[in-house]
Amino acid sequence: MELTEIQTATVITHAELLHHWLGHRALTRRVIAAFPEKELLEFSIGGMRTFAGMVIELLAIGAPGLKQMAGGETEPLNENVLEANSKANILQLWDEATELIKVYWDQIPEDRFHDKILAFGQYEGTIWFSIFYFIDNEIHHRAQGTVYLRSIGITPPYFYER
Amino acid sequence: MELTEIQTATVITHAELLHHWLGHRALTRRVIAAFPEKELLEFSIGGMRTFAGMVIELLAIGAPGLKQMAGGETEPLNENVLEANSKANILQLWDEATELIKVYWDQIPEDRFHDKILAFGQYEGTIWFSIFYFIDNEIHHRAQGTVYLRSIGITPPYFYER
Repeated sequence: MELTEIQTATVITHAELLHHWLGHRALTRRVIAAFPEKELLEFSIGGMRTFAGMVIELLAIGAPGLKQMAGGETEPLNENVLEANSKANILQLWDEATELIKVYWDQIPEDRFHDKILAFGQYEGTIWFSIFYFIDNEIHHRAQGTVYLRSIGITPPYFYER
Repeated sequence: MELTEIQTATVITHAELLHHWLGHRALTRRVIAAFPEKELLEFSIGGMRTFAGMVIELLAIGAPGLKQMAGGETEPLNENVLEANSKANILQLWDEATELIKVYWDQIPEDRFHDKILAFGQYEGTIWFSIFYFIDNEIHHRAQGTVYLRSIGITPPYFYER
């Protein structure tokens, strides 16, 4: 079997999945940027977290989770160390995390995506399963943020623009 | 190269991606079921659609979109034909769509996931790209539904239970 055949017989390639995630991350960045700072840090609905609080969770998961998969030490999930106390800081942390994700991604080859790991020392699953969880969880919280935006009269960025 | 090696050198297999989507569909079903009928059909935030309206969009996309990929005729996106006028009807349409998705999935082999299509006669992309869009769009609208639920004092089903 030729390598080209293997490529085209694949549901999604390693490079495509990264590109897909980076498209989502660019959209999430635009949703963060669409919030006025006060509402980003303070507004919530129905007792939920602020959107800043949700983004802090996403920051604690994405790059640190990939770092472990790339061979780094397994560290517990930690949402407390981030200085996400202003819109500018949150956007900067987001951009730094995106750069780290690109670096770690190349250190996790395709043939390791079915390796079993214990993400953050507690979540059992394969590497692909954990990465899909990270992406899906980002889509989930970003969508909650779009309801916050609508609720304060701001039209969110389009879902289909990445 | 052995077939087993090809399998493990894949980011996610054909069967795993279906299983992943079906897990999301089961969760979306639980979110629909968590709504009282009145709020499902009438409640909204910030001028957005009702959650029933969003689910009608998901019904118009998932199974019909896969049907085209499986070799069916290309039909335009149609959100108007569905009799989604009660909670019971919506849940029944959801279950029927899930069964159709399983049938069509098997008719779209892995080696076609990089074929270019024009989904619903208007959205250009590969099959994998369209399917990821369908899944991501479901996660997106379901998450908006969870904010509606919180807003009316109902705890949504957990995101990580599929």
